[in-house]
Amino acid sequence: MNKAFLAAATALALAFPLAAQETSQPAYPAPSEIVAAAPKADWVAIPAEDLLVMNLAPDAEGKPRQVVIQLMPAPFSQGWVHNIRLFARAKWYDGTSVNRVQDNYVTQWGDPNYDNPEATGKPKPLPNGLKVMGEADYVAQIDDSLAYLWSKDPLYRADPNKSILALTGDPYSGVSGFIDGWPVSADTGPDGIWPTHCYGMVGVGRNYSPDTGSGAELYTVIGQAPRHLDRNIALVGRVIEGMEHLSSLPRGKGALGFYTAEEANKRTPILTVRVASDLPAGEQPAFEYLSTESQTFAAYADAIANRRDPFFITPAGGADICNIRVPVRRVADSG
Amino acid sequence: MNKAFLAAATALALAFPLAAQETSQPAYPAPSEIVAAAPKADWVAIPAEDLLVMNLAPDAEGKPRQVVIQLMPAPFSQGWVHNIRLFARAKWYDGTSVNRVQDNYVTQWGDPNYDNPEATGKPKPLPNGLKVMGEADYVAQIDDSLAYLWSKDPLYRADPNKSILALTGDPYSGVSGFIDGWPVSADTGPDGIWPTHCYGMVGVGRNYSPDTGSGAELYTVIGQAPRHLDRNIALVGRVIEGMEHLSSLPRGKGALGFYTAEEANKRTPILTVRVASDLPAGEQPAFEYLSTESQTFAAYADAIANRRDPFFITPAGGADICNIRVPVRRVADSG
Repeated sequence: MNKAFLAAATALALAFPLAAQETSQPAYPAPSEIVAAAPKADWVAIPAEDLLVMNLAPDAEGKPRQVVIQLMPAPFSQGWVHNIRLFARAKWYDGTSVNRVQDNYVTQWGDPNYDNPEATGKPKPLPNGLKVMGEADYVAQIDDSLAYLWSKDPLYRADPNKSILALTGDPYSGVSGFIDGWPVSADTGPDGIWPTHCYGMVGVGRNYSPDTGSGAELYTVIGQAPRHLDRNIALVGRVIEGMEHLSSLPRGKGALGFYTAEEANKRTPILTVRVASDLPAGEQPAFEYLSTESQTFAAYADAIANRRDPFFITPAGGADICNIRVPVRRVADSG
Repeated sequence: MNKAFLAAATALALAFPLAAQETSQPAYPAPSEIVAAAPKADWVAIPAEDLLVMNLAPDAEGKPRQVVIQLMPAPFSQGWVHNIRLFARAKWYDGTSVNRVQDNYVTQWGDPNYDNPEATGKPKPLPNGLKVMGEADYVAQIDDSLAYLWSKDPLYRADPNKSILALTGDPYSGVSGFIDGWPVSADTGPDGIWPTHCYGMVGVGRNYSPDTGSGAELYTVIGQAPRHLDRNIALVGRVIEGMEHLSSLPRGKGALGFYTAEEANKRTPILTVRVASDLPAGEQPAFEYLSTESQTFAAYADAIANRRDPFFITPAGGADICNIRVPVRRVADSG
């Protein structure tokens, strides 16, 4: 694979311009080229305790389908994260299934008999030791959240009006940006910071208020960011590998995209869900994310907001926070 | 299906709260309930000349897969729209295929041998009579575009700072809103209005600048709105039925999500593409959209920006333009 090929590939071109490859000499690197050139020190290891490994039943061709989810660190949603580790360690998720796929919205999994109009059996009993969270916990309560955000992110310090971080230009919050590798929002007034519903983020299904969900029902975003769910439901993590196994599933024909009883055979079985740190050392996957506090991330975000690589003719001059995806990569020599 | 069930269904709840249904009496209608109550006069018929009917090969279970695309009206992208009708009438698309599915980005179809690193044959010759468009045509050149936008949309007249239309709070443009049923953006300074890359929008694949694409290669957005493509590539329409047949296809393992030669069997064959007005009268599908100039649409957009239906506890107070999807419905008694 030669360099010109890579340049074209990373430009996310909507044709595949073989001819253009021969002469293309980009004056500006594409966002993915900036990431590829990041020094090792800019990558942060994700603790194995924060990795959830979900094995779905093999696909129609018999190929394995593994999904890896990164759980959120403090100060976000830690009660639900506690519950999710508890469910995994009780092997509670094993034998559940993907029960809902709603186009441009969410894929949801858990007990097919939990609050499902298509249920044919009784709900699975929940394990002991679950925390019951409150609605206030949808927002991380932090004194002077704006100062906290700025202290975390050098980009905010450098230019609090920088549109690349949607500090301006976000219809859903006063301020948006990144903390410790996660997209977050805050108000400019009251304290509190909350994670944002971007593509691939994982949340906790719940019943009507004041229910906040236990973590038995989980979903991931498979379309346009449903940011109206921010502060209305708990976000607990994101899919960092195998997203295509959840996003390309057949859509359900029932209300809200649930599979109907007639299409129950489309419910993808969940074989196992494990916390990576509980796996044998040789089987533990390892991942790292690009520090959102690094200069590489700043250059990456700037390049996304102002595309100058060869395919583009008119840079936007801004970007939605959900289009600035935090780079995550698998570490090959794990174990 | 009782009323309480409908209320829960339209709330897009992330659990399916059977218990809550019994007591739920929404004080505010959900967005979909507002649309369901729209008077007939608020719906606008889509001309059959603007409907493209694409039949994919049946799925693995032998079920038909039909996709209906609405082409954009003037003043947007009419040269490419001309070409697309020409391709369809020449039956040029028949026998082509879906060649690229990149997660959280696009599904692209056309000639598998067009600028494809995985090509195994020669490109299909193009028909005569195609228009060659310029890059200036990505933007509709309209004198005093802001006044034009306001004249079209009573919401703008009512309150040009209304955040529900992302008039403020859009990192990609000075102004965003709706014209004749389409999401559009404009600058507050120079003239010109352009369509926005929301989920399900259809665009024209192209090579490097100054190429602008002919319409032989088309794509649709299957993830977070890639608004950085606005003004960099021609948008020509949107998928209004059968989107799931394009969004749930297996992702390609090649560069940019192209299917590799080894997975060429995953390329979904395109059997036929026809302009609906060319079909026999009894076979013409008919659709209508909710007028974006109606008070119903204003109420719908407001309800999306300020969710007060029972599932929600904290309204966002704003919405991204790509989360205010223009309602489109099939007219049952067509022909």
